[in-house]
Amino acid sequence: MAYQLGTNFKLFTLNSNPELTQEIADLLGCEMGKSAITHFSDGEVQIHIQESVRGADVYVVQSTSQPGSEHVMELLIMIDALKRASVKTINVVIPYYGYARQDRKASSREPITAKLVANMLEKAGATHVITMDLHAPQIQGFFNIPVDQLLGGKILEKHFLDKGLTDAIVVAPDNGGLGRARKLASHLDVPIGFIDKRRMHPDEPETVNIVGDIKGKNVIIIVDIIDTATTISLAANVLVENGAKAVYACCTHAVLSGQAVQRIQDSAITELVVTNTIYLPEEKRTSKINILSVAPLLAEAIEHVHNEKPVTPLFE
Amino acid sequence: MAYQLGTNFKLFTLNSNPELTQEIADLLGCEMGKSAITHFSDGEVQIHIQESVRGADVYVVQSTSQPGSEHVMELLIMIDALKRASVKTINVVIPYYGYARQDRKASSREPITAKLVANMLEKAGATHVITMDLHAPQIQGFFNIPVDQLLGGKILEKHFLDKGLTDAIVVAPDNGGLGRARKLASHLDVPIGFIDKRRMHPDEPETVNIVGDIKGKNVIIIVDIIDTATTISLAANVLVENGAKAVYACCTHAVLSGQAVQRIQDSAITELVVTNTIYLPEEKRTSKINILSVAPLLAEAIEHVHNEKPVTPLFE
Amino acid sequence: MAYQLGTNFKLFTLNSNPELTQEIADLLGCEMGKSAITHFSDGEVQIHIQESVRGADVYVVQSTSQPGSEHVMELLIMIDALKRASVKTINVVIPYYGYARQDRKASSREPITAKLVANMLEKAGATHVITMDLHAPQIQGFFNIPVDQLLGGKILEKHFLDKGLTDAIVVAPDNGGLGRARKLASHLDVPIGFIDKRRMHPDEPETVNIVGDIKGKNVIIIVDIIDTATTISLAANVLVENGAKAVYACCTHAVLSGQAVQRIQDSAITELVVTNTIYLPEEKRTSKINILSVAPLLAEAIEHVHNEKPVTPLFE
Amino acid sequence: MAYQLGTNFKLFTLNSNPELTQEIADLLGCEMGKSAITHFSDGEVQIHIQESVRGADVYVVQSTSQPGSEHVMELLIMIDALKRASVKTINVVIPYYGYARQDRKASSREPITAKLVANMLEKAGATHVITMDLHAPQIQGFFNIPVDQLLGGKILEKHFLDKGLTDAIVVAPDNGGLGRARKLASHLDVPIGFIDKRRMHPDEPETVNIVGDIKGKNVIIIVDIIDTATTISLAANVLVENGAKAVYACCTHAVLSGQAVQRIQDSAITELVVTNTIYLPEEKRTSKINILSVAPLLAEAIEHVHNEKPVTPLFE
Amino acid sequence: MAYQLGTNFKLFTLNSNPELTQEIADLLGCEMGKSAITHFSDGEVQIHIQESVRGADVYVVQSTSQPGSEHVMELLIMIDALKRASVKTINVVIPYYGYARQDRKASSREPITAKLVANMLEKAGATHVITMDLHAPQIQGFFNIPVDQLLGGKILEKHFLDKGLTDAIVVAPDNGGLGRARKLASHLDVPIGFIDKRRMHPDEPETVNIVGDIKGKNVIIIVDIIDTATTISLAANVLVENGAKAVYACCTHAVLSGQAVQRIQDSAITELVVTNTIYLPEEKRTSKINILSVAPLLAEAIEHVHNEKPVTPLFE
Amino acid sequence: MAYQLGTNFKLFTLNSNPELTQEIADLLGCEMGKSAITHFSDGEVQIHIQESVRGADVYVVQSTSQPGSEHVMELLIMIDALKRASVKTINVVIPYYGYARQDRKASSREPITAKLVANMLEKAGATHVITMDLHAPQIQGFFNIPVDQLLGGKILEKHFLDKGLTDAIVVAPDNGGLGRARKLASHLDVPIGFIDKRRMHPDEPETVNIVGDIKGKNVIIIVDIIDTATTISLAANVLVENGAKAVYACCTHAVLSGQAVQRIQDSAITELVVTNTIYLPEEKRTSKINILSVAPLLAEAIEHVHNEKPVTPLFE
Repeated sequence: MAYQLGTNFKLFTLNSNPELTQEIADLLGCEMGKSAITHFSDGEVQIHIQESVRGADVYVVQSTSQPGSEHVMELLIMIDALKRASVKTINVVIPYYGYARQDRKASSREPITAKLVANMLEKAGATHVITMDLHAPQIQGFFNIPVDQLLGGKILEKHFLDKGLTDAIVVAPDNGGLGRARKLASHLDVPIGFIDKRRMHPDEPETVNIVGDIKGKNVIIIVDIIDTATTISLAANVLVENGAKAVYACCTHAVLSGQAVQRIQDSAITELVVTNTIYLPEEKRTSKINILSVAPLLAEAIEHVHNEKPVTPLFE
Repeated sequence: MAYQLGTNFKLFTLNSNPELTQEIADLLGCEMGKSAITHFSDGEVQIHIQESVRGADVYVVQSTSQPGSEHVMELLIMIDALKRASVKTINVVIPYYGYARQDRKASSREPITAKLVANMLEKAGATHVITMDLHAPQIQGFFNIPVDQLLGGKILEKHFLDKGLTDAIVVAPDNGGLGRARKLASHLDVPIGFIDKRRMHPDEPETVNIVGDIKGKNVIIIVDIIDTATTISLAANVLVENGAKAVYACCTHAVLSGQAVQRIQDSAITELVVTNTIYLPEEKRTSKINILSVAPLLAEAIEHVHNEKPVTPLFE
Repeated sequence: MAYQLGTNFKLFTLNSNPELTQEIADLLGCEMGKSAITHFSDGEVQIHIQESVRGADVYVVQSTSQPGSEHVMELLIMIDALKRASVKTINVVIPYYGYARQDRKASSREPITAKLVANMLEKAGATHVITMDLHAPQIQGFFNIPVDQLLGGKILEKHFLDKGLTDAIVVAPDNGGLGRARKLASHLDVPIGFIDKRRMHPDEPETVNIVGDIKGKNVIIIVDIIDTATTISLAANVLVENGAKAVYACCTHAVLSGQAVQRIQDSAITELVVTNTIYLPEEKRTSKINILSVAPLLAEAIEHVHNEKPVTPLFE
Repeated sequence: MAYQLGTNFKLFTLNSNPELTQEIADLLGCEMGKSAITHFSDGEVQIHIQESVRGADVYVVQSTSQPGSEHVMELLIMIDALKRASVKTINVVIPYYGYARQDRKASSREPITAKLVANMLEKAGATHVITMDLHAPQIQGFFNIPVDQLLGGKILEKHFLDKGLTDAIVVAPDNGGLGRARKLASHLDVPIGFIDKRRMHPDEPETVNIVGDIKGKNVIIIVDIIDTATTISLAANVLVENGAKAVYACCTHAVLSGQAVQRIQDSAITELVVTNTIYLPEEKRTSKINILSVAPLLAEAIEHVHNEKPVTPLFE
Repeated sequence: MAYQLGTNFKLFTLNSNPELTQEIADLLGCEMGKSAITHFSDGEVQIHIQESVRGADVYVVQSTSQPGSEHVMELLIMIDALKRASVKTINVVIPYYGYARQDRKASSREPITAKLVANMLEKAGATHVITMDLHAPQIQGFFNIPVDQLLGGKILEKHFLDKGLTDAIVVAPDNGGLGRARKLASHLDVPIGFIDKRRMHPDEPETVNIVGDIKGKNVIIIVDIIDTATTISLAANVLVENGAKAVYACCTHAVLSGQAVQRIQDSAITELVVTNTIYLPEEKRTSKINILSVAPLLAEAIEHVHNEKPVTPLFE
Repeated sequence: MAYQLGTNFKLFTLNSNPELTQEIADLLGCEMGKSAITHFSDGEVQIHIQESVRGADVYVVQSTSQPGSEHVMELLIMIDALKRASVKTINVVIPYYGYARQDRKASSREPITAKLVANMLEKAGATHVITMDLHAPQIQGFFNIPVDQLLGGKILEKHFLDKGLTDAIVVAPDNGGLGRARKLASHLDVPIGFIDKRRMHPDEPETVNIVGDIKGKNVIIIVDIIDTATTISLAANVLVENGAKAVYACCTHAVLSGQAVQRIQDSAITELVVTNTIYLPEEKRTSKINILSVAPLLAEAIEHVHNEKPVTPLFE
């Protein structure tokens, strides 16, 4: 497939995931924009755009994954540099939108950092956002500029369709993700269950109940983000203890912080399928983890946006 | 309980729910602000504030319930009038925040009207929002001004605690409300279930499965909003058909549009408990519907805000 | 006349006046944009744009006539949907700009709703306004975006030129419209008068004096808006009682609320000439009322704006 | 009368009308704020505030009379200095709001300078405006901050009531001021007329008709602004030629630019009554011109605003 | 050199320096935009754009030189008129950015007028700034829109290279300009010195020390702005008294206010080289003053910006 | 000295310099605000304010020193949390304003990060800034909110006055700091010099010349920031090689990144005097480095601001 992007198109990467951007560039058949994102001796971010961008439609790829503050600042500074360099549009491509779990005041005197970051991006000068699987879809409404949210579900779903598991059931490991689970279950045409975890009294241990029939089944757990992997590992173990045949887990955003990789390795999970919205360093790539690429999806979205074609077909 | 509010305090009502505002005023021991919200011959909203408000801390109570456009416009025009009259702060008390279900782009080329309304309120001049049970808590993040969200759950929970139902189970009639159900179940110390409703193929009827054990149980269904009552009535009927002993339903916001009241009356629901965030006209008050007042909660919140005391105790 | 509009051009209507938009579309030789503006069960406005608009120059036609709040909200929500769908420009065509008479604080603690609506349109994302005969031309200054105001005067003037009335005089029924009357009188080359209506003491009835010589004359009354028709009907009766041969009335915006149509029918007015900036339902179309179309004027203005030609020739 | 203003109150003058500010300060019983508004050698405005203003409610008096650009810039720079000096509120008192006649696009590609100035004042940091007799009341709507508009009509009206003219009639010299004339006529309980001035063909001279009966009458002409005095002088001459006994003229804002004073002196005007919203230099104070002070009205308004009392009684 | 500018390009001048704009237009081979910038009788600025600009990329040339307030207001009003006339972009070309020396709070309660003007330009609607030798380069950061700063140093440097002075030294007459002096010295490959001027005690006269060896040397003094010429004349005299062979002075912006020209004429300065960023009236053009044109540099910058080519080569 | 701060006063620290904040709190005699600034497992900043702040005047102390992105984000998130918790004012105390050296576009397509951070702070909700020794004073103009800049010069100056060095000279190691050097020299009543460092040809080494007479003198080098210490160490060595008796160095902001401390230790510098605007960890505190506290200055400034007293005496 040969994309026509025109001379005004520029694709830049920042430091969070240059491999993904390179993959996108290869698919689009374009050069990566020349720039250097380095640090001064004291750690301040230094950005040098090394080719003319006047009048260009610029796409900047950056996941705001860990270290989150660094990656957010890099993105803001890049936007500032582009704005002052008289570009036409600044399209930020954020495969993983970090700080997304701080999207409401869960208790008094808390920030809503996901909104703060949205405000910062807009104020800096972003004109358009392309992102994937926001933790809550309402985060689109944190922006006053257009947001195109792509969904990794199709990529994960295809994996399981290809696998051809029989006797499968989709289980949501927590109440928040029931919608996501229901969607996958519906597409795979299998039943659904969820895990009810609660603490009856503050001084008692948490009890875990499985709602739904998982005996002898191939369970597929789906979530949007796996961070510490505590919840998902616990869920897998409980499911197996209660008779599940095997447990497969999948997610779009593999944060995998702290001991997450070890926890998964030690758990009853047979396979963990993730995407590359977040760059996973070599040392975190274990035998259980299977990484699928979102580059084809992002490349196509960028091309559609740039050539003013609808992106609807990409996420419906 | 005698509240001290000072001379700078003003409480105004608009047309959506003057009874609730009056109840709040009575609890606070203050007079209602004098104003006339009428219409010109052609239907345009006409607002006349009939007492001085210069330098005042004003609280305006308005649910953006149906007719929603009318009630939103009334609120915006009132804010404009107050701003131009040199008030000090404009605190909008929105017991029911309408348009809340349009809080994300569910498909392409959709508005995010809940965000639009937030932007309009801020641009008009609102400085603070007090509201109840937002459809999604992320709507707080649609605002750049402080939002205090009160929760009706305690009021509903107290009703069922007082009732003393045995063999109870809480059921979420849809995936979105599982968190709310889990919270009530936890406070009542009873199990939880949910209803899995899906369409296997576009040309087949929707199938409904009950996940969780409801046989012989007193089922309590909880949602934030009951609008057409289709989902909840269907859920109740299915639950009873599958062996539930009785079905109680409750919600904070009783929109009850179209044939909702009739549907409930015809359904297997034994009792529907709602609050008065939305004014329910006489003709909709049937024998099955039990209305609890949020006025004490709102009055206390207003007093805390006005006297700069934390509102945390009111919703934790 | 064949207009060239290009593929980026999209014309949408909302619910206030789809007939006028269709007429414009026919004149421009373009299809109407596909969209559905419906209501949820509880009356909330639901907008669904049913074709791709990415990168388009969109023109949305909506008079903010009664029900005004509904029509304003429809327009704001449509703008929000378009903005989030990544259109290039959002040109709102408002043949009748409602709430225009609330354009200043006539007494203390009043809103300036015409300014509020302007702020809402801009904040929502409108980039350009095309409108007709603003109640006060200063309303252009309520906006920070370009406003092209077209004038219906030429259309009305041509009607009376074609009619060939002899012994005519133009009379302003109120002080506000003297400029408009003077302009028409000048173009028809006839004299001018006005009606001085005042209350000498608060407890006496209003007295009405005719300033200018109207005996035996064909009087033409011109105003921008006819709402209740009280003023104009009274003026016509007084003029006839004082010796006018016949009274013709005309206006651009036929609000005609309440008993207006009956009042005109019962009055001494021979003919009322209006335009279709506001949709007049069948039941309001009586024998005395003559409706002229502004569609050719609006179509030409849209074409000029879209093709970046001056619109000056259209209103000078 | 002793006003209580508190320690937070500060009154500053700029260069357009320090005499008026001094008069206001004397009436309020306060000291003028210490500041120096000078110019650098190259003419740039230099502002030095010479006393602490941290946390103060500041009132700055400045008419944007000629030289208008200079006076606007002085005001903007003063606002910037106050804002950066951490004042609490910045109340700009603009007795004469210049550029007010550029309040709409009268023809294509014109600025709306009255709106531009409003935007500049807000952006610089003004929080409240007190002004008098805006050329169009809609200019209030150019602001998003509160505007209190005082009216000089009562001051002028009292002058003519005290004078006790018999056989009087009020005449508007132009269509724009008919409302103002009608109000004065109503308060003096006398009839009203106006002057219809038009050009029948572009190459013919303008013809002037008097509408209303002025024979043997004492005519009072009222306008808001007298600038070149061409219109008013011509009107006075025509009125006397057509049998008026005497012509009195009055206005709030005496711009009196170019040959205006000479024109009035040479005209049939018996007396011209003006206020001191604009400073009139000695050489312009001729025998025919009678200056009334607006200082008592402004002083009272400032005191009401500062002490959060309604200003309604001052202009109704 | 033939520039291609396209039909969308428009170049307008305001009143500060029409000769420079004409020179730019001649170099670009384009017509000047038709407009009239006049004054009403009372001095208010009146702008009339006399050709269609809808959809155009407009370049407006205006130095905010003295009278500064007038020239700033002209520019703001022009921007407002252009914005309301639906242009595409408004590029303001400000060869001399006045008020630049008020770029920080040097003492308490001072304005930062250079920032105020930046805010006003942005708020009015400017989308891009082209300027030369800002007094402090940080002024670029006062804007949120792109700023292209051109440097006059090359033009001045070329003059001295062509002159072929031997035994030269560059001297900074004040601490602020050491960077500029160092740059010129480096390009001419000559040494550098500076003048240390200070007051030891408040009641003693200022002492002046020359730091660096200037004996028998051809001294070149460089600054960005010469205003009153007091500092530079004093420096030249002291240098000659201390053995300098000759003193040449140069600057980009020749404000030359008050007695500046006379002071230079009376001083030990042999030649003063300036540019035409500020229009120098005939009476200020003395034998010692040599004016170099910046028109070629500005013309090239405008062409590069308009055709989206990098402007970097022009200032590096 | 006992400060009166009232109940509305709250002082919070973030993670960059809690020791300094504690010192300020001790001086003010107030408790530190209770809050926890921690990190989630994936490194995202987590803020929990643990006491009520409704209606409070809050002061947050945070230097944006390294790691700069982390400290900027902490500050922004804290501001967001405070804003949403309905505080009255948010005063950010930034002893060291990081990213300050990126205050202009030094070459094409560079960001102006110091302005970006200013915009972010304002957009997040800061209402007032207190800072020290901005790298360029123009950074004050990057803000539209009040900025109080304190100067560390007095603290450093007092140190050298107390030391009683004879035969002293102040030397600026670079052209940027000549003003700072001149000020110190003037206060100490000693001469001044500077170091002219330049590269004659790109392929030649940089040459260093000392301008001014330093033979046998006690040289004091002053700068605002010492980062890598390369420039200052080189300067010290060159000065000693050229006959200086001893070299003392001082600065307000001791960034001391990379090998800075070692470089100083290895250089000819006798003593380096710094302040504690940036927290210096134990391992960087060597025998040559003398740390003076800015806490008394900041405490007094906070008290003055809070009690609306002028801060001028603190920096003049």
